[in-house]
Amino acid sequence: MKNTNKLNINGKRLWSDLMELGRIGQQTTGGVTRTALSAADQQARQWLLEKMKAAGLIVNVDAAMNVIGTLEADEPQTEKIAAMGSHLDTVPSGGMFDGALGVVAALECARTLRENRVNLPWNLEIISFCDEEAAHHAGTVGSRAMMGLLQEGEIHHTKNKRTPTFAQNLEHWGRDPAQIDTARRRPEEFAFFLELHIEQGRRLEAENLRIGVVTAIVGIYRYIVSVPGEPAHAGTTPMSLRKDALVEAAPVFTLLPQWVRERNPEMVGTIGQVSLEPGASNVVPGECRFVGELRSQIAEDMQAVREQLKAYAAQREGWRVETIYEKNSVQLTAPLIDYIIDAAKSEGFPWTRMPSGAGHDAQSMAAFVPTGMIFVPCRNGVSHSPAELIEEDNATEGCQVLLRTLLQLSARGRESLCVSPAVPRHQ
Amino acid sequence: MKNTNKLNINGKRLWSDLMELGRIGQQTTGGVTRTALSAADQQARQWLLEKMKAAGLIVNVDAAMNVIGTLEADEPQTEKIAAMGSHLDTVPSGGMFDGALGVVAALECARTLRENRVNLPWNLEIISFCDEEAAHHAGTVGSRAMMGLLQEGEIHHTKNKRTPTFAQNLEHWGRDPAQIDTARRRPEEFAFFLELHIEQGRRLEAENLRIGVVTAIVGIYRYIVSVPGEPAHAGTTPMSLRKDALVEAAPVFTLLPQWVRERNPEMVGTIGQVSLEPGASNVVPGECRFVGELRSQIAEDMQAVREQLKAYAAQREGWRVETIYEKNSVQLTAPLIDYIIDAAKSEGFPWTRMPSGAGHDAQSMAAFVPTGMIFVPCRNGVSHSPAELIEEDNATEGCQVLLRTLLQLSARGRESLCVSPAVPRHQ
Repeated sequence: MKNTNKLNINGKRLWSDLMELGRIGQQTTGGVTRTALSAADQQARQWLLEKMKAAGLIVNVDAAMNVIGTLEADEPQTEKIAAMGSHLDTVPSGGMFDGALGVVAALECARTLRENRVNLPWNLEIISFCDEEAAHHAGTVGSRAMMGLLQEGEIHHTKNKRTPTFAQNLEHWGRDPAQIDTARRRPEEFAFFLELHIEQGRRLEAENLRIGVVTAIVGIYRYIVSVPGEPAHAGTTPMSLRKDALVEAAPVFTLLPQWVRERNPEMVGTIGQVSLEPGASNVVPGECRFVGELRSQIAEDMQAVREQLKAYAAQREGWRVETIYEKNSVQLTAPLIDYIIDAAKSEGFPWTRMPSGAGHDAQSMAAFVPTGMIFVPCRNGVSHSPAELIEEDNATEGCQVLLRTLLQLSARGRESLCVSPAVPRHQ
Repeated sequence: MKNTNKLNINGKRLWSDLMELGRIGQQTTGGVTRTALSAADQQARQWLLEKMKAAGLIVNVDAAMNVIGTLEADEPQTEKIAAMGSHLDTVPSGGMFDGALGVVAALECARTLRENRVNLPWNLEIISFCDEEAAHHAGTVGSRAMMGLLQEGEIHHTKNKRTPTFAQNLEHWGRDPAQIDTARRRPEEFAFFLELHIEQGRRLEAENLRIGVVTAIVGIYRYIVSVPGEPAHAGTTPMSLRKDALVEAAPVFTLLPQWVRERNPEMVGTIGQVSLEPGASNVVPGECRFVGELRSQIAEDMQAVREQLKAYAAQREGWRVETIYEKNSVQLTAPLIDYIIDAAKSEGFPWTRMPSGAGHDAQSMAAFVPTGMIFVPCRNGVSHSPAELIEEDNATEGCQVLLRTLLQLSARGRESLCVSPAVPRHQ
């Protein structure tokens, strides 16, 4: 491989792409709504496919609607694949960098390599995973499909009764949900996976650092709670005869955050979705469904609050607590952490090791594949909001560290393949 | 007018029509979802227009999408119009009789008159009012449009930010919202308005009565409450730094029913709609909006609870309480009450005078037009639910009393026109 010590990505092109992509699904409020498998998400997928083709990548959309662009090596020295990426879907009224940065930066790395005729010793895949943001049921659908981590039947569930399932939306775009298993890959195919992402917290900004080297990703437990009532006419049903599902459910809206705070000030818990059936102003609520989520690095903390929730529900008639998923925190691969630190050092950016409080596709990959993750700061730590913002320099620097990490792993050639997620070791 | 003492409506045909109509918008749960200006509601409108035309009525759909079918008198003795009707729209997952009975029974009366060549001294209008059930913002839109009672700009509002407004849905069906005022009629055009409806309560059933003669319709005050928060990432935002709109709003979900019960055991209060923005499981709620409704015969009771709600909101930062509407209870027209009682007596059905705990289109009409209302029992008093049910006999008997009332008012001819809603008096 030729000397690549001076190789630089094109920051202006990267930023221009991010701005262009940010207009897909843009709202009048300035936020972006590109929920997975919506029309806007599909438009972003098409946009990416065109950009990948223009960059000379071989493109594919797999059965989970992950987009994969491959930069083929001229003379591969191994069958293993180097992979980098993130996701293009957003939460409703989200920002334009969460996910998008990692995909577009990975594309920019591939473009830089090709323009400079740098030949890697392996094929490089740029992956945009489908439905990281839990638009249908659980999140990280595409990366879990790729790693064979989907739960039986989960693509046929939704968090409420009103919106289509992941499977229904696959069909809407002409895909057969029964084929989703074909998106599964053998983990041994991958040499490693790298994801660049915005921090979505305030630490890097507060400490005036430019690069976060992620050591672990937070655990997430998520539940759908269904509280029964009796739907009835809001005008003719006396208060004494009502069974109002909202009145029954409401105490938990304040209790859950309280249980979380009491357990550990560093864990978090959120009820971000509530739906009433039938949901009309003149009908006593006949059912209240809400999604309760717990996050912590410590599995025991999440288990403890889960048990409080389940005990509360068990004392009441007809309450159901359905597990969407329970993912404990994962440690990222130690040798890859060192490679990223080396890259940040050689680029001269102040860095720190840190855990991730947000879930990521890297979490799915890290279960089987050596995985590293790079953070850049975002303003005030705000994300999942129209106010999400990064500077052009943050994007350039993160992308540059991503490229440098890739190049140094590639320069080490077969030696770098010795990293293993199951038995991580320092080299 | 010929002798009509033996005239009977066709109960089997009435029931068959109700069953046929009930399949439009029918759900797998057995309930009916025919929210106003939805595709199912429009299908019901087309169904009714065809039935009206087949019955020889002259049809019209006005600018508020009220359906009006006119049975023209051969030799009208007055320009005044006799009117009967109700609405075909339903709440989400509602029943097949609420509203539908009053429209289909009025149609059945017109068919019976025409088949038996009974000539009324006035034109008879069968009216199906649009959006009684508050699908967009406030309810009884069509009847209030007809009486000039719409508030400035209200057809451009919704209860949440996600669904189209009444105006937008008018446009969807090819109507110009700017023309809605053309649906307004001069109240003096109408001799009277009669509405047959299911009771939606348990009293008639409990007392083994067949006909309720409505004396007054409950008052309804309805509000949208907006509670602000700060949308933020549910994984990376510490509990101590959150401003969670759901946690902030939740106490009111239990307080409002409590205020209502404490004020008067006979009044009711309901929160039937709650929406979170952005409404994603991984985002701290940035806004919570809910609709609070109060109903009572006594204006002071509703005003007192309204003030409690407003005082609670005023003590908190950024809360907004927006009035959808405040309608005090209305008395129905005394002479018409007597006509209905006479009709129930002459048909031999046990009856009682009673107030209505539900709002109705008759409430809009009663503000300016002599108005009467007839109730029939429904099983367990259940309405606004898939479990809503009446017997075929209830439909037949209610329709028969409706016809008899119309005939007796018509037999009295000009004399019956002396009734006035403003200064009701017994004759």
